[in-house]
Amino acid sequence: MQKPLLQIALDTYDLPSALGPLQKAAAQIDVIEVGTILCLSEGMHAVRAIKSLFPDKIVLADVRIAEAGSIISKMCFDANADWVSVVSGAAPSSFEVVLAEAQARGGDMQIELSDGWTWDMAQKWADMGVQQVIFKRSRDLEAQGTLTWGEKDFDTIRRLHEMGFKVTVTGGVKPKDIPLFAGVPVYIFIAGRAIRGADDPLAAATEFQTIMADTWA
Amino acid sequence: MQKPLLQIALDTYDLPSALGPLQKAAAQIDVIEVGTILCLSEGMHAVRAIKSLFPDKIVLADVRIAEAGSIISKMCFDANADWVSVVSGAAPSSFEVVLAEAQARGGDMQIELSDGWTWDMAQKWADMGVQQVIFKRSRDLEAQGTLTWGEKDFDTIRRLHEMGFKVTVTGGVKPKDIPLFAGVPVYIFIAGRAIRGADDPLAAATEFQTIMADTWA
Repeated sequence: MQKPLLQIALDTYDLPSALGPLQKAAAQIDVIEVGTILCLSEGMHAVRAIKSLFPDKIVLADVRIAEAGSIISKMCFDANADWVSVVSGAAPSSFEVVLAEAQARGGDMQIELSDGWTWDMAQKWADMGVQQVIFKRSRDLEAQGTLTWGEKDFDTIRRLHEMGFKVTVTGGVKPKDIPLFAGVPVYIFIAGRAIRGADDPLAAATEFQTIMADTWA
Repeated sequence: MQKPLLQIALDTYDLPSALGPLQKAAAQIDVIEVGTILCLSEGMHAVRAIKSLFPDKIVLADVRIAEAGSIISKMCFDANADWVSVVSGAAPSSFEVVLAEAQARGGDMQIELSDGWTWDMAQKWADMGVQQVIFKRSRDLEAQGTLTWGEKDFDTIRRLHEMGFKVTVTGGVKPKDIPLFAGVPVYIFIAGRAIRGADDPLAAATEFQTIMADTWA
Protein backbone atom coordinates (compact mmCIF):
# COMPACT_ATOMS: atom_id res chain seq x y z
CA MET A 1 0.00 0.00 0.00
CA GLN A 2 1.30 3.37 -1.07
CA LYS A 3 2.35 5.96 1.50
CA PRO A 4 -0.21 8.78 1.56
CA LEU A 5 0.58 12.23 0.25
CA LEU A 6 0.67 15.24 2.56
CA GLN A 7 -1.56 18.20 1.78
CA ILE A 8 -1.29 21.53 3.54
CA ALA A 9 -4.57 23.41 3.90
CA LEU A 10 -4.14 27.15 3.70
CA ASP A 11 -7.18 28.76 5.27
CA THR A 12 -5.92 32.19 6.15
CA TYR A 13 -7.67 35.52 5.77
CA ASP A 14 -5.04 36.81 3.39
CA LEU A 15 -2.32 35.56 1.07
CA PRO A 16 0.75 36.84 2.94
CA SER A 17 -0.25 34.93 6.08
CA ALA A 18 -0.38 31.74 4.00
CA LEU A 19 2.86 32.28 2.11
CA GLY A 20 5.15 32.47 5.12
CA PRO A 21 4.39 29.04 6.61
CA LEU A 22 3.98 27.52 3.13
CA GLN A 23 7.42 28.65 2.01
CA LYS A 24 8.96 27.13 5.13
CA ALA A 25 7.15 23.78 4.89
CA ALA A 26 7.09 23.40 1.10
CA ALA A 27 9.94 20.90 0.78
CA GLN A 28 7.82 18.34 2.68
CA ILE A 29 4.46 19.14 1.07
CA ASP A 30 2.93 17.20 -1.83
CA VAL A 31 -0.35 19.06 -2.35
CA ILE A 32 -1.12 22.69 -1.57
CA GLU A 33 -4.74 23.46 -0.81
CA VAL A 34 -5.86 27.01 -1.33
CA GLY A 35 -8.69 26.73 1.17
CA THR A 36 -12.22 28.00 0.80
CA ILE A 37 -11.53 30.83 3.20
CA LEU A 38 -8.42 31.97 1.34
CA CYS A 39 -10.19 31.65 -2.03
CA LEU A 40 -12.99 33.84 -0.67
CA SER A 41 -10.69 36.37 0.92
CA GLU A 42 -8.18 36.82 -1.90
CA GLY A 43 -9.96 35.31 -4.85
CA MET A 44 -8.23 33.42 -7.65
CA HIS A 45 -5.23 35.70 -7.22
CA ALA A 46 -4.25 33.41 -4.33
CA VAL A 47 -4.37 30.31 -6.54
CA ARG A 48 -2.42 31.99 -9.30
CA ALA A 49 0.26 33.30 -6.94
CA ILE A 50 0.74 29.99 -5.18
CA LYS A 51 1.00 27.93 -8.36
CA SER A 52 3.43 30.50 -9.71
CA LEU A 53 5.59 30.18 -6.60
CA PHE A 54 5.33 26.37 -6.45
CA PRO A 55 4.87 25.16 -10.03
CA ASP A 56 5.94 21.59 -9.20
CA LYS A 57 3.37 21.06 -6.46
CA ILE A 58 -0.22 19.97 -7.00
CA VAL A 59 -2.42 22.97 -6.22
CA LEU A 60 -6.03 22.43 -5.18
CA ALA A 61 -8.52 25.29 -5.40
CA ASP A 62 -10.87 24.21 -2.62
CA VAL A 63 -13.80 26.23 -3.90
CA ARG A 64 -16.43 23.64 -2.91
CA ILE A 65 -18.55 24.05 -6.01
CA ALA A 66 -22.28 23.70 -5.34
CA GLU A 67 -23.53 24.97 -8.69
CA ALA A 68 -22.36 27.06 -11.65
CA GLY A 69 -19.75 24.31 -11.86
CA SER A 70 -18.70 25.08 -15.40
CA ILE A 71 -17.90 28.75 -14.76
CA ILE A 72 -16.24 28.24 -11.40
CA SER A 73 -14.08 25.32 -12.49
CA LYS A 74 -12.97 27.20 -15.61
CA MET A 75 -11.99 30.12 -13.40
CA CYS A 76 -9.91 27.84 -11.16
CA PHE A 77 -8.10 26.13 -14.04
CA ASP A 78 -7.52 29.53 -15.67
CA ALA A 79 -5.77 30.48 -12.43
CA ASN A 80 -3.60 27.36 -12.91
CA ALA A 81 -5.17 25.15 -10.27
CA ASP A 82 -4.52 21.44 -10.79
CA TRP A 83 -7.55 20.23 -8.87
CA VAL A 84 -10.90 21.71 -7.86
CA SER A 85 -13.41 20.55 -5.25
CA VAL A 86 -17.15 20.01 -5.53
CA VAL A 87 -19.47 19.34 -2.59
CA SER A 88 -21.40 16.07 -2.58
CA GLY A 89 -24.66 18.00 -2.30
CA ALA A 90 -24.03 19.89 -5.54
CA ALA A 91 -26.62 19.91 -8.31
CA PRO A 92 -26.24 16.47 -9.99
CA SER A 93 -25.29 18.01 -13.33
CA SER A 94 -22.37 19.80 -11.64
CA PHE A 95 -20.28 16.65 -11.26
CA GLU A 96 -20.31 15.90 -14.96
CA VAL A 97 -19.55 19.43 -16.13
CA VAL A 98 -16.73 19.92 -13.65
CA LEU A 99 -15.23 16.49 -14.34
CA ALA A 100 -15.32 17.17 -18.08
CA GLU A 101 -13.67 20.56 -17.57
CA ALA A 102 -11.01 19.02 -15.31
CA GLN A 103 -10.23 16.26 -17.80
CA ALA A 104 -10.04 18.76 -20.67
CA ARG A 105 -7.53 20.80 -18.67
CA GLY A 106 -5.38 17.89 -17.51
CA GLY A 107 -6.60 18.40 -13.96
CA ASP A 108 -8.86 16.56 -11.58
CA MET A 109 -11.97 17.00 -9.46
CA GLN A 110 -12.42 16.01 -5.83
CA ILE A 111 -15.85 15.43 -4.31
CA GLU A 112 -16.10 16.49 -0.70
CA LEU A 113 -18.37 14.10 1.17
CA SER A 114 -20.64 16.38 3.19
CA ASP A 115 -23.47 15.37 5.52
CA GLY A 116 -26.13 13.59 3.51
CA TRP A 117 -24.01 11.74 0.95
CA THR A 118 -25.07 8.17 0.26
CA TRP A 119 -23.49 5.05 -1.19
CA ASP A 120 -25.88 5.29 -4.12
CA MET A 121 -24.48 8.73 -4.91
CA ALA A 122 -20.94 7.39 -4.55
CA GLN A 123 -21.68 4.56 -6.98
CA LYS A 124 -22.98 7.07 -9.54
CA TRP A 125 -19.79 9.10 -9.17
CA ALA A 126 -17.67 5.98 -9.61
CA ASP A 127 -19.63 5.04 -12.73
CA MET A 128 -19.11 8.58 -14.02
CA GLY A 129 -15.33 8.18 -13.72
CA VAL A 130 -14.77 10.31 -10.64
CA GLN A 131 -11.35 9.47 -9.17
CA GLN A 132 -11.18 11.34 -5.89
CA VAL A 133 -13.29 11.92 -2.82
CA ILE A 134 -12.61 13.80 0.40
CA PHE A 135 -13.68 12.16 3.63
CA LYS A 136 -13.90 14.69 6.39
CA ARG A 137 -14.89 15.65 9.84
CA SER A 138 -16.56 19.04 9.70
CA ARG A 139 -14.82 21.95 11.31
CA ASP A 140 -17.88 22.71 13.41
CA LEU A 141 -18.19 19.14 14.72
CA GLU A 142 -14.47 18.97 15.20
CA ALA A 143 -14.64 22.17 17.25
CA GLN A 144 -17.27 20.52 19.45
CA GLY A 145 -14.89 17.59 19.93
CA THR A 146 -17.73 15.13 19.32
CA LEU A 147 -15.97 12.88 16.84
CA THR A 148 -12.82 10.82 16.86
CA TRP A 149 -11.33 8.63 14.17
CA GLY A 150 -12.41 5.03 14.52
CA GLU A 151 -13.29 1.77 12.80
CA LYS A 152 -16.45 3.25 11.31
CA ASP A 153 -14.34 5.86 9.51
CA PHE A 154 -11.78 3.28 8.41
CA ASP A 155 -14.48 0.98 7.03
CA THR A 156 -15.92 3.87 5.05
CA ILE A 157 -12.51 4.72 3.61
CA ARG A 158 -11.88 1.06 2.72
CA ARG A 159 -15.23 0.75 0.97
CA LEU A 160 -14.68 3.97 -0.99
CA HIS A 161 -11.26 2.67 -2.00
CA GLU A 162 -12.78 -0.62 -3.15
CA MET A 163 -15.18 1.37 -5.34
CA GLY A 164 -12.14 2.83 -7.06
CA PHE A 165 -11.77 6.16 -5.29
CA LYS A 166 -8.59 7.73 -4.06
CA VAL A 167 -9.58 9.00 -0.62
CA THR A 168 -8.36 12.19 1.00
CA VAL A 169 -8.78 12.37 4.77
CA THR A 170 -9.26 15.65 6.58
CA GLY A 171 -10.54 17.10 9.81
CA GLY A 172 -7.95 18.11 12.36
CA VAL A 173 -5.56 15.23 11.61
CA LYS A 174 -2.54 15.30 13.92
CA PRO A 175 0.67 13.26 13.66
CA LYS A 176 -0.42 11.11 16.62
CA ASP A 177 -3.59 10.14 14.67
CA ILE A 178 -1.70 8.78 11.68
CA PRO A 179 -0.74 5.35 13.11
CA LEU A 180 -4.46 4.68 13.75
CA PHE A 181 -4.86 4.52 9.97
CA ALA A 182 -2.33 1.66 9.54
CA GLY A 183 -3.59 -0.62 6.75
CA VAL A 184 -6.24 1.91 5.67
CA PRO A 185 -5.92 3.00 2.01
CA VAL A 186 -5.56 6.76 2.48
CA TYR A 187 -4.42 8.68 -0.60
CA ILE A 188 -3.86 12.05 1.06
CA PHE A 189 -3.85 13.41 4.59
CA ILE A 190 -4.70 17.07 4.98
CA ALA A 191 -3.11 19.09 7.74
CA GLY A 192 -3.94 22.73 8.24
CA ARG A 193 -3.24 24.42 11.51
CA ALA A 194 -1.03 21.49 12.57
CA ILE A 195 1.54 22.68 10.03
CA ARG A 196 0.62 26.27 9.29
CA GLY A 197 0.28 27.15 12.95
CA ALA A 198 3.42 25.33 14.09
CA ASP A 199 6.42 27.27 15.36
CA ASP A 200 8.45 25.31 12.83
CA PRO A 201 6.21 24.42 9.86
CA LEU A 202 8.98 22.43 8.16
CA ALA A 203 9.53 20.30 11.26
CA ALA A 204 5.78 19.79 11.61
CA ALA A 205 5.44 18.67 7.96
CA THR A 206 8.51 16.45 8.31
CA GLU A 207 6.95 14.81 11.37
CA PHE A 208 3.84 13.97 9.31
CA GLN A 209 5.94 12.53 6.49
CA THR A 210 8.07 10.49 8.88
CA ILE A 211 5.10 9.02 10.71
CA MET A 212 3.36 8.25 7.41
CA ALA A 213 6.50 6.53 6.12
CA ASP A 214 6.74 4.47 9.34
CA THR A 215 3.04 3.58 9.32
CA TRP A 216 3.02 2.58 5.65
CA ALA A 217 6.49 0.95 5.74
CA MET B 1 -48.60 43.86 -0.24
CA GLN B 2 -45.26 45.60 -0.46
CA LYS B 3 -43.56 46.08 -3.81
CA PRO B 4 -40.53 43.77 -4.00
CA LEU B 5 -36.99 45.09 -3.95
CA LEU B 6 -34.70 44.73 -6.95
CA GLN B 7 -31.36 42.99 -6.48
CA ILE B 8 -28.64 42.98 -9.10
CA ALA B 9 -26.49 39.84 -9.14
CA LEU B 10 -22.92 40.54 -10.09
CA ASP B 11 -21.36 37.29 -11.25
CA THR B 12 -18.46 38.49 -13.32
CA TYR B 13 -14.94 37.11 -13.45
CA ASP B 14 -13.46 40.38 -12.26
CA LEU B 15 -14.44 43.53 -10.41
CA PRO B 16 -14.09 46.06 -13.28
CA SER B 17 -16.58 44.10 -15.41
CA ALA B 18 -19.09 44.37 -12.59
CA LEU B 19 -18.53 48.02 -11.77
CA GLY B 20 -19.41 49.41 -15.19
CA PRO B 21 -22.97 48.06 -15.44
CA LEU B 22 -23.50 48.51 -11.69
CA GLN B 23 -22.60 52.20 -11.81
CA LYS B 24 -25.04 52.73 -14.68
CA ALA B 25 -27.95 50.85 -13.08
CA ALA B 26 -27.37 51.82 -9.45
CA ALA B 27 -30.09 54.47 -9.16
CA GLN B 28 -32.71 51.76 -9.69
CA ILE B 29 -31.09 49.04 -7.58
CA ASP B 30 -32.03 48.23 -3.98
CA VAL B 31 -29.68 45.36 -3.20
CA ILE B 32 -26.28 44.62 -4.72
CA GLU B 33 -25.26 40.97 -4.74
CA VAL B 34 -21.58 40.27 -4.97
CA GLY B 35 -22.10 36.85 -6.50
CA THR B 36 -20.32 33.64 -5.65
CA ILE B 37 -18.29 33.83 -8.83
CA LEU B 38 -17.14 37.39 -8.18
CA CYS B 39 -16.38 36.59 -4.52
CA LEU B 40 -14.24 33.66 -5.69
CA SER B 41 -12.51 35.60 -8.45
CA GLU B 42 -11.73 38.81 -6.57
CA GLY B 43 -12.21 37.82 -2.96
CA MET B 44 -13.55 40.12 -0.28
CA HIS B 45 -11.87 43.02 -2.05
CA ALA B 46 -14.91 43.06 -4.34
CA VAL B 47 -17.33 43.33 -1.42
CA ARG B 48 -15.28 46.06 0.21
CA ALA B 49 -14.97 48.09 -3.00
CA ILE B 50 -18.66 47.84 -3.85
CA LYS B 51 -19.86 48.84 -0.37
CA SER B 52 -17.39 51.70 -0.44
CA LEU B 53 -18.78 52.91 -3.78
CA PHE B 54 -22.43 52.36 -2.81
CA PRO B 55 -22.63 52.85 0.95
CA ASP B 56 -26.39 53.42 0.91
CA LYS B 57 -27.24 50.16 -0.85
CA ILE B 58 -27.67 46.80 0.84
CA VAL B 59 -24.68 44.67 -0.16
CA LEU B 60 -24.99 40.88 -0.08
CA ALA B 61 -21.86 38.73 -0.06
CA ASP B 62 -23.27 35.63 -1.76
CA VAL B 63 -20.62 33.31 -0.41
CA ARG B 64 -23.00 30.36 0.05
CA ILE B 65 -21.56 29.20 3.35
CA ALA B 66 -21.56 25.41 3.72
CA GLU B 67 -19.35 25.21 6.80
CA ALA B 68 -16.78 27.26 8.68
CA GLY B 69 -19.71 29.68 8.99
CA SER B 70 -18.24 31.69 11.81
CA ILE B 71 -14.99 32.50 10.01
CA ILE B 72 -16.52 33.15 6.60
CA SER B 73 -19.34 35.35 7.88
CA LYS B 74 -16.90 37.39 10.00
CA MET B 75 -14.78 37.89 6.90
CA CYS B 76 -17.80 39.14 4.93
CA PHE B 77 -18.96 41.55 7.63
CA ASP B 78 -15.39 42.77 8.06
CA ALA B 79 -15.50 43.63 4.35
CA ASN B 80 -18.67 45.65 5.12
CA ALA B 81 -21.24 43.28 3.67
CA ASP B 82 -24.76 43.80 5.03
CA TRP B 83 -25.98 40.29 4.32
CA VAL B 84 -24.36 36.89 3.81
CA SER B 85 -25.79 33.70 2.32
CA VAL B 86 -25.74 30.15 3.66
CA VAL B 87 -26.81 27.07 1.69
CA SER B 88 -29.69 25.03 3.06
CA GLY B 89 -27.46 21.94 3.09
CA ALA B 90 -24.93 23.55 5.41
CA ALA B 91 -23.89 21.83 8.61
CA PRO B 92 -26.82 22.44 11.03
CA SER B 93 -24.65 24.36 13.47
CA SER B 94 -23.74 26.80 10.68
CA PHE B 95 -27.12 28.52 10.67
CA GLU B 96 -26.91 29.47 14.31
CA VAL B 97 -23.35 30.72 14.26
CA VAL B 98 -23.86 32.78 11.10
CA LEU B 99 -27.18 34.20 12.33
CA ALA B 100 -25.58 35.18 15.63
CA GLU B 101 -22.69 36.84 13.82
CA ALA B 102 -25.09 38.68 11.48
CA GLN B 103 -27.20 39.94 14.37
CA ALA B 104 -24.12 41.05 16.29
CA ARG B 105 -23.00 43.04 13.26
CA GLY B 106 -26.36 44.61 12.44
CA GLY B 107 -26.59 42.49 9.31
CA ASP B 108 -28.64 39.55 8.18
CA MET B 109 -28.33 36.00 6.84
CA GLN B 110 -30.14 34.52 3.87
CA ILE B 111 -30.61 30.78 3.48
CA GLU B 112 -30.46 29.62 -0.10
CA LEU B 113 -32.91 26.77 -0.62
CA SER B 114 -30.94 24.19 -2.56
CA ASP B 115 -32.12 20.79 -3.75
CA GLY B 116 -32.96 18.66 -0.73
CA TRP B 117 -34.37 21.29 1.63
CA THR B 118 -37.48 20.23 3.54
CA TRP B 119 -40.33 21.96 5.33
CA ASP B 120 -39.04 20.49 8.58
CA MET B 121 -35.75 22.26 8.02
CA ALA B 122 -37.59 25.49 7.16
CA GLN B 123 -39.59 25.27 10.39
CA LYS B 124 -36.38 24.87 12.39
CA TRP B 125 -34.94 27.95 10.70
CA ALA B 126 -38.11 29.92 11.45
CA ASP B 127 -37.98 28.84 15.09
CA MET B 128 -34.34 29.90 15.17
CA GLY B 129 -35.29 33.40 14.07
CA VAL B 130 -34.08 33.24 10.49
CA GLN B 131 -35.72 36.07 8.52
CA GLN B 132 -34.76 35.45 4.91
CA VAL B 133 -34.68 32.60 2.41
CA ILE B 134 -33.77 32.50 -1.26
CA PHE B 135 -36.02 30.47 -3.53
CA LYS B 136 -34.25 29.67 -6.74
CA ARG B 137 -34.06 27.83 -9.97
CA SER B 138 -30.56 26.46 -10.34
CA ARG B 139 -28.39 27.87 -13.07
CA ASP B 140 -27.79 24.40 -14.46
CA LEU B 141 -31.50 23.53 -14.63
CA GLU B 142 -32.27 26.98 -15.94
CA ALA B 143 -29.69 26.45 -18.69
CA GLN B 144 -31.46 23.23 -19.62
CA GLY B 145 -34.71 25.20 -19.87
CA THR B 146 -36.52 22.50 -17.93
CA LEU B 147 -38.28 24.73 -15.42
CA THR B 148 -40.72 27.61 -15.67
CA TRP B 149 -42.34 29.66 -12.93
CA GLY B 150 -45.73 28.28 -11.99
CA GLU B 151 -48.32 27.70 -9.27
CA LYS B 152 -46.11 25.18 -7.51
CA ASP B 153 -43.44 27.84 -7.09
CA PHE B 154 -45.98 30.44 -6.00
CA ASP B 155 -47.48 28.09 -3.40
CA THR B 156 -44.02 27.43 -2.01
CA ILE B 157 -43.30 31.14 -1.76
CA ARG B 158 -46.67 31.76 -0.06
CA ARG B 159 -46.08 29.01 2.48
CA LEU B 160 -42.58 30.28 3.26
CA HIS B 161 -44.04 33.78 3.72
CA GLU B 162 -46.70 32.42 6.07
CA MET B 163 -43.93 30.83 8.14
CA GLY B 164 -42.50 34.32 8.59
CA PHE B 165 -39.80 34.39 5.93
CA LYS B 166 -39.02 37.22 3.56
CA VAL B 167 -38.53 35.38 0.27
CA THR B 168 -36.04 36.31 -2.42
CA VAL B 169 -36.74 34.86 -5.86
CA THR B 170 -33.99 34.12 -8.34
CA GLY B 171 -33.23 32.09 -11.42
CA GLY B 172 -33.25 33.95 -14.71
CA VAL B 173 -36.14 36.26 -13.79
CA LYS B 174 -37.04 38.53 -16.71
CA PRO B 175 -39.38 41.54 -16.71
CA LYS B 176 -42.02 39.54 -18.57
CA ASP B 177 -42.04 36.98 -15.73
CA ILE B 178 -42.86 39.55 -13.04
CA PRO B 179 -46.64 39.87 -13.66
CA LEU B 180 -46.93 36.08 -13.15
CA PHE B 181 -46.08 36.73 -9.50
CA ALA B 182 -49.06 39.07 -8.92
CA GLY B 183 -50.37 38.49 -5.41
CA VAL B 184 -47.34 36.42 -4.43
CA PRO B 185 -45.43 37.80 -1.43
CA VAL B 186 -41.99 38.25 -2.98
CA TYR B 187 -39.53 40.31 -0.94
CA ILE B 188 -36.79 40.59 -3.54
CA PHE B 189 -36.36 39.71 -7.20
CA ILE B 190 -32.85 39.03 -8.37
CA ALA B 191 -31.81 39.93 -11.88
CA GLY B 192 -28.33 39.21 -13.13
CA ARG B 193 -27.61 39.09 -16.82
CA ALA B 194 -30.98 40.73 -17.55
CA ILE B 195 -29.55 43.98 -16.14
CA ARG B 196 -25.77 43.51 -16.22
CA GLY B 197 -25.82 42.22 -19.78
CA ALA B 198 -28.26 44.81 -21.12
CA ASP B 199 -27.10 47.46 -23.58
CA ASP B 200 -28.63 50.00 -21.20
CA PRO B 201 -28.45 48.61 -17.65
CA LEU B 202 -30.32 51.61 -16.20
CA ALA B 203 -33.19 51.16 -18.63
CA ALA B 204 -33.28 47.43 -17.87
CA ALA B 205 -33.39 48.04 -14.10
CA THR B 206 -36.02 50.74 -14.58
CA GLU B 207 -38.15 48.31 -16.56
CA PHE B 208 -38.02 45.85 -13.65
CA GLN B 209 -38.98 48.54 -11.15
CA THR B 210 -41.83 49.81 -13.34
CA ILE B 211 -43.30 46.35 -13.90
CA MET B 212 -42.96 45.55 -10.19
CA ALA B 213 -44.73 48.81 -9.30
CA ASP B 214 -47.53 48.02 -11.76
CA THR B 215 -47.88 44.44 -10.58
CA TRP B 216 -47.91 45.35 -6.90
CA ALA B 217 -49.97 48.55 -7.37
